[in-house]
Amino acid sequence: MAGNSFGDVFRITTFGESHGKAIGVIIDGCPPNIAVDESFIQSELDKRRPGQSKITTQRKESDTASILSGVFEGKTTGTPLAMLIPNEDQRSKDYTHIKDKYRPSHADYTYQMKYGIRDYRGGGRSSARETAARVAAGAVAKSFLAQYGIRIFAHVSGVGKIEAPNLPSHDIDELVQMRESNIVRCADPATANEMVSFIDSIRKAGDTVGGRISAIIQHVPVGLGEPVFDKLHADLAKAMMGINAVHGFEYGSGFAGSEMRGSEHNDIFVNPDRDAAKLKTLTNFSGGIQGGISNGMEIAFRVAFKPVATLMRAQQTINESGEETEITGKGRHDPCVVPRAVIIVEAMAALVITDHLLKNQIYATK
Amino acid sequence: MAGNSFGDVFRITTFGESHGKAIGVIIDGCPPNIAVDESFIQSELDKRRPGQSKITTQRKESDTASILSGVFEGKTTGTPLAMLIPNEDQRSKDYTHIKDKYRPSHADYTYQMKYGIRDYRGGGRSSARETAARVAAGAVAKSFLAQYGIRIFAHVSGVGKIEAPNLPSHDIDELVQMRESNIVRCADPATANEMVSFIDSIRKAGDTVGGRISAIIQHVPVGLGEPVFDKLHADLAKAMMGINAVHGFEYGSGFAGSEMRGSEHNDIFVNPDRDAAKLKTLTNFSGGIQGGISNGMEIAFRVAFKPVATLMRAQQTINESGEETEITGKGRHDPCVVPRAVIIVEAMAALVITDHLLKNQIYATK
Amino acid sequence: MAGNSFGDVFRITTFGESHGKAIGVIIDGCPPNIAVDESFIQSELDKRRPGQSKITTQRKESDTASILSGVFEGKTTGTPLAMLIPNEDQRSKDYTHIKDKYRPSHADYTYQMKYGIRDYRGGGRSSARETAARVAAGAVAKSFLAQYGIRIFAHVSGVGKIEAPNLPSHDIDELVQMRESNIVRCADPATANEMVSFIDSIRKAGDTVGGRISAIIQHVPVGLGEPVFDKLHADLAKAMMGINAVHGFEYGSGFAGSEMRGSEHNDIFVNPDRDAAKLKTLTNFSGGIQGGISNGMEIAFRVAFKPVATLMRAQQTINESGEETEITGKGRHDPCVVPRAVIIVEAMAALVITDHLLKNQIYATK
Amino acid sequence: MAGNSFGDVFRITTFGESHGKAIGVIIDGCPPNIAVDESFIQSELDKRRPGQSKITTQRKESDTASILSGVFEGKTTGTPLAMLIPNEDQRSKDYTHIKDKYRPSHADYTYQMKYGIRDYRGGGRSSARETAARVAAGAVAKSFLAQYGIRIFAHVSGVGKIEAPNLPSHDIDELVQMRESNIVRCADPATANEMVSFIDSIRKAGDTVGGRISAIIQHVPVGLGEPVFDKLHADLAKAMMGINAVHGFEYGSGFAGSEMRGSEHNDIFVNPDRDAAKLKTLTNFSGGIQGGISNGMEIAFRVAFKPVATLMRAQQTINESGEETEITGKGRHDPCVVPRAVIIVEAMAALVITDHLLKNQIYATK
Repeated sequence: MAGNSFGDVFRITTFGESHGKAIGVIIDGCPPNIAVDESFIQSELDKRRPGQSKITTQRKESDTASILSGVFEGKTTGTPLAMLIPNEDQRSKDYTHIKDKYRPSHADYTYQMKYGIRDYRGGGRSSARETAARVAAGAVAKSFLAQYGIRIFAHVSGVGKIEAPNLPSHDIDELVQMRESNIVRCADPATANEMVSFIDSIRKAGDTVGGRISAIIQHVPVGLGEPVFDKLHADLAKAMMGINAVHGFEYGSGFAGSEMRGSEHNDIFVNPDRDAAKLKTLTNFSGGIQGGISNGMEIAFRVAFKPVATLMRAQQTINESGEETEITGKGRHDPCVVPRAVIIVEAMAALVITDHLLKNQIYATK
Repeated sequence: MAGNSFGDVFRITTFGESHGKAIGVIIDGCPPNIAVDESFIQSELDKRRPGQSKITTQRKESDTASILSGVFEGKTTGTPLAMLIPNEDQRSKDYTHIKDKYRPSHADYTYQMKYGIRDYRGGGRSSARETAARVAAGAVAKSFLAQYGIRIFAHVSGVGKIEAPNLPSHDIDELVQMRESNIVRCADPATANEMVSFIDSIRKAGDTVGGRISAIIQHVPVGLGEPVFDKLHADLAKAMMGINAVHGFEYGSGFAGSEMRGSEHNDIFVNPDRDAAKLKTLTNFSGGIQGGISNGMEIAFRVAFKPVATLMRAQQTINESGEETEITGKGRHDPCVVPRAVIIVEAMAALVITDHLLKNQIYATK
Repeated sequence: MAGNSFGDVFRITTFGESHGKAIGVIIDGCPPNIAVDESFIQSELDKRRPGQSKITTQRKESDTASILSGVFEGKTTGTPLAMLIPNEDQRSKDYTHIKDKYRPSHADYTYQMKYGIRDYRGGGRSSARETAARVAAGAVAKSFLAQYGIRIFAHVSGVGKIEAPNLPSHDIDELVQMRESNIVRCADPATANEMVSFIDSIRKAGDTVGGRISAIIQHVPVGLGEPVFDKLHADLAKAMMGINAVHGFEYGSGFAGSEMRGSEHNDIFVNPDRDAAKLKTLTNFSGGIQGGISNGMEIAFRVAFKPVATLMRAQQTINESGEETEITGKGRHDPCVVPRAVIIVEAMAALVITDHLLKNQIYATK
Repeated sequence: MAGNSFGDVFRITTFGESHGKAIGVIIDGCPPNIAVDESFIQSELDKRRPGQSKITTQRKESDTASILSGVFEGKTTGTPLAMLIPNEDQRSKDYTHIKDKYRPSHADYTYQMKYGIRDYRGGGRSSARETAARVAAGAVAKSFLAQYGIRIFAHVSGVGKIEAPNLPSHDIDELVQMRESNIVRCADPATANEMVSFIDSIRKAGDTVGGRISAIIQHVPVGLGEPVFDKLHADLAKAMMGINAVHGFEYGSGFAGSEMRGSEHNDIFVNPDRDAAKLKTLTNFSGGIQGGISNGMEIAFRVAFKPVATLMRAQQTINESGEETEITGKGRHDPCVVPRAVIIVEAMAALVITDHLLKNQIYATK
């Protein structure tokens, strides 16, 4: 109801504010006997962590997750798995200047109107800091999916008007290596260079810029997704639109597909494996999902992020009393959110696929 | 879990197959004392009804909804409101040719793999016929929203590569009139003509084409939406992506916004009404939603529909035994789905807003 | 939220008022490929049907359920299974005398206060007529459970101060035969005679009486139940307390067990089958459930029903204007609800076990 | 799904094992602007805390809850309120003797069968230690209910065959004072003495005993409860049956009511306040709930607890290999659970009433 939970079966609930004591997450419905590797969880958190490069915020947070419950002798027990990430570098003073001002295109005004109270420090609950909890939970989900050979890859495919070419490979290990070779997390090195320079110039100008993340999911079995409201792509859409700053989602052929004709767009079935339960399609405009259900092909989607709202420039705004005032970003902020958001996109995708995989065990024919 | 329900508070559950006895819907959580006008429900269904023009399928269904419960002396009672729409023109014979063949880019293969059984007649549950139930429920939601002055408008803003200009007005009565003046349901008459001609030519070629629907929602109060996973736009996205054939969703500045800089994109607050609880923004790249919560501005979003998969042409495919075969569309199908989908988009939007409006009554400060 | 649904995975939603057009139910989450036998559903409904004997209400309803969706060629398809039971004998005139009066110990006053409107005819939604929908859904659940060998038996174990001895057998076929040999549905024929005479005398006096139903569930596999809030017995309790007129629930040793010592009450494990996964216990004070999870022993519970509130006698009451008035039951009512409630108890138990059985498929170790 | 959450609107999720790092709870859906008094939360935890008297377990836990999120400057913000209670006195060695043995009437066997793994230390998740998290959440719920004047009182009304007389007062302050004057928490001092002596003798014998808790809830407004499956008493029943060791629940006239006639049992409406919206009833066999909805009278219910299963005596049992063995309780255990469970019953009742109160704001007529 209050919307701090995600998933039906593998269900996470996050808590915490940007400048409170801690943030964290409970996973309820995690299957038992999954090996949990804390160093893997940490390596995922490190990809989202602030202060990792010159093009991200300089806030210093080690983002160390400790597991409080649900794991016994290195394995999940089927009971709630709680993880805690303490807040360390809470320069709350940086935020007294916004105590009674509404930052443009932020959630200050809407929170104040909805709740009549808000923790203004660093955006409180509306801060993207909350997504660290999602990344920790996503790491557990990825460990579970690994048992099924399911792998997820996301990278920065666009920054401002710069657009990366199609993925240079469909080998995820290769793709990860290429992506992690640069600080903007684009799998195409040449484009990555261009993006880094552009973001850096934007940052120096005290401005920010939007971007796009593209993702693929491989080896998803046929049959995931509930075909009416809880279509697999509908849940992916909700998951992605729930990430801070996201303004758009498309899968398969997406918006471009809406310009096509059926005769171009239809994905023709073929049976290269001579197995009636493992059909392939010649093209993949369906993005691996037909009628809301995975068809065994690679799932592909794309997410659009608006530019970060906090500028290191003066902007006109209104205060809580309704009067005109001016505001300039202090604190430590990202000039472009997509390099750190790549891992959040992967985490949310892992949560969706895990949830549907478990859900499908109920209905799958035997 | 099985995903035939939508909404938390104003919760609908639909049932029914394309060629079964009936389709229908239960609304659970409908507030009491709402006047229900059956003729309004019918007028909404008529906009989705097949056979309404030369550019839609010629299947004949009167789509008459009867209310079975939950209404007493013309008003809702707070108990479940069930509506039934019998299926009439079920030329199931039209479908025996697909009994054991998988139509390309349809849900035949995925349903068969997921459930091990499927009602192949007309696509069974995967048929867009199910959306009539949503339209009926959406009509009740619209009646509820009308009490708050909230209004929703959708129209066809794109067919293939044809794109309508920006909305000619923000007066919804005017817009509806313009939209209903043409069979493609585009509020811009010149573009509408172009679209109709194009769809007609596509139809004659036995082909189909995709399109786009744009929607606005006016007079939504500030405060709707739960700010983390159940952001107002995340629920709108899920609602829209759950409509058959939808491949993309964006709100506010959308994908285009991801190319912009923060200094262009930020919506500056102003206070024209001298009321600190009724701020406005100079621009509306936020699409009426900030931090997942409505900010009182017009909500705006756009939805992409892929081309209809059933072609009146021979296509290569695979049958249930895994063998190559050929298939040609029989039955009666739409060359382009968007003219009839306009009302489905409105219905789903009405359901989302109603659900969040009711939900917000719980937490709203007093 | 509005509480007309039950179950998480095998989820039913009922609708309908006592004197509306119809009542019905949607099962969402019914696994595919279950054979559905409409005559079995009907035979279950016949056990709840009014007018079946001199000790039940004389309202005439054939209670014929028709399946509208979710079944194809005799088998479930995994899509929502909707069933409709039209109302036939709606002597609504019988109820005009209660239009503005609150019947004592009925739901008239609370519905009016909660909703500000009520369908007063026959109690509207608060009528036990709604339970026919549950029985129809329960019949489908029983068909599913039969595949696992799971069987449920309930009978009338008490009427007023009359109490049946312990069950004469644990063979369910035998028990059903004994129970169905008498109109009060008590498996002990001697007690049954006593009960029938007593109820008949109560009926002639225009009065009513309460009673108790005891139930057992056999061959439930080890592991059903979620151990914290959704304990198997907690869900059974909720299911039973949700039946009209129920005031008490106990399982295993129940209230009597709270008077015992641990040394008497503990169920000692034994291993007669030499199978560490199929332990038994020497006694069964645990009622087949330990820590909220089934342990493989017979599940046993008991339910208390208050006397029917409608009397064929004058009673003092208050009307909607707050004035004193008098009321006398008209219409057709049961002098004792338990003979017809036996099948409702079984249906609700079947729904709980089915839901947990499916749920357990998700988490069960492999 | 996995059942570690309770409530729809005011929704708690608990985590933690008896001998893990910590236990805790997230409240999601807590309304904003509620003053949170940490000393009140602590005083509630102290009533459940182990080691508080000679008739409770001697485990030493300060049970100090710290609030991690959701409270800003002493008030709730509408965001998730997380509380953490570290485990301190974890003498896990006390439990190595049960590592591979199934304690009789415990959850060891069922957890092992369900999950294939269990944290055997102190019962892990099945330990009643988890209920501390419920008490902390219940304290927040009580603070919320206090704003509406709603108050809850529970006390020990029975231990073994000892039964307290009816409540000596209906003034809750007086009742609390009487209850807290003795270590068994019975509001009748004479009976309390008898209970304490009896429990002490049981303890010395290495045995345990069951008991009963009775509760009342005052000043609940008319209209709480959803009338079909989510009846107010059905949710109370589920809440109570979800407490460790509970085997029975009854409300109002309960099991005794099932022996009565309608003419005795019906609660006659009267209107002493000359207000048609504030009727009273002469008797209260309905226990304050009619048709599943509160009627404004005092809500009354009773809960039965089985004897604690851990005995300080040798008992025969079976180990994980299926072999016969013997077990004797070590560790620190309660001879009777009810004195400490009083506050858990109150907490769960507070959660149910809060959830329904919030839920009712949605549907209440205006």
